[in-house]
Formats: sequence, structure tokens, C-alpha cells
Amino acid sequence: MRRGIKISKYHVKVEVKLKPGHVDSEGLTAKEALTDIGYEVEEVSTAKVYEIDLKANSLSEAESIADEMCRKLLANPVKDNYKVEVERSE
Amino acid sequence: MRRGIKISKYHVKVEVKLKPGHVDSEGLTAKEALTDIGYEVEEVSTAKVYEIDLKANSLSEAESIADEMCRKLLANPVKDNYKVEVERSE
Repeated sequence: MRRGIKISKYHVKVEVKLKPGHVDSEGLTAKEALTDIGYEVEEVSTAKVYEIDLKANSLSEAESIADEMCRKLLANPVKDNYKVEVERSE
Repeated sequence: MRRGIKISKYHVKVEVKLKPGHVDSEGLTAKEALTDIGYEVEEVSTAKVYEIDLKANSLSEAESIADEMCRKLLANPVKDNYKVEVERSE
């Protein structure tokens, strides 16, 4: 009997952040707004998080799918850095 | 000699996410786009991350400043949940 491939559910967390040197306009806006309401802040930067539930045959497959999703769609290779965290959810 | 209050630098990480039940249009858009390029995904949700460098007298003060920033500006109490992580940076 061929050993069936067991599909499992994985939870992927992707954080996409501007590479150093790129102007973070949202960060600047937030810094200004915080300063306007009286806070003293040195630096404000922003990032985008995507949480994705997907099915895969293994943790490593889920990680490579997630990485591919970033390179193809979720992160702009020119201006963004991204980091991926994957954990099995079921 | 009065004990001087020592100001330290803290790094705050705030993650703002829609409360359950609110439509995550960015998540839906990302899900559609991932599906269009051939990925099978079950669920996609998004969140906003702010990273803030600030000065405070103590870790607890930095935490309460960060929490206040969320309640006053960074998170909309009606539709957003937020979580705060603070660590001393200097």
C-alpha cells in the first residue's frame, strides 16, 4: 500500500517592511501625528503583516510556498524586505 | 544627593488588527490575487505594524505610553484590536 501523503494545515505569518533607505511615508505621518498630540518619539517605521492559512504536505513545503508568495506578490523585491514564519495549525 | 531618574531608550512594536467580524478587504484582495496566480489559500488576514523608538524612565512607563498611543491614535477602538511589545534598546 503506497504511503499516502498527509496534507496538513499551516499558518503563515509574513511581515513586509521597506528596505533601509526607502522613505517610510506612513511612518513619518504617524510620527508627526504622535508628536502633534504631545508624544516625544525618535523614530517610527511601519510594516504590513499577512496571515495566511494554507494546506501543504510538509512544513518545508509550506515555507517554500510562502516564500514564493512573497517573491511573486506580497513583497516588492526592489523596495521591500520580508520575513516569513510558518507553523503547523492542524 | 537625590537619585537621578535614568532615561532609557525603548523599542516599541505595535500590531493593529481588525477585530473578528470586520471585513478585511485587504485580506480578501490578497486572497483573490494569490488564488489568481494559482495558490490555494484558505484564509488571508492583514495587520499593520508600527515600530517606535522612544525614551522613558522605565519599561512600565514605556509600556503605558505605547498603550496610550494606541488608544489615542494608532488603533481605532471600535474596529481594531492591538497588541504591544516593548523592549529596552539602550
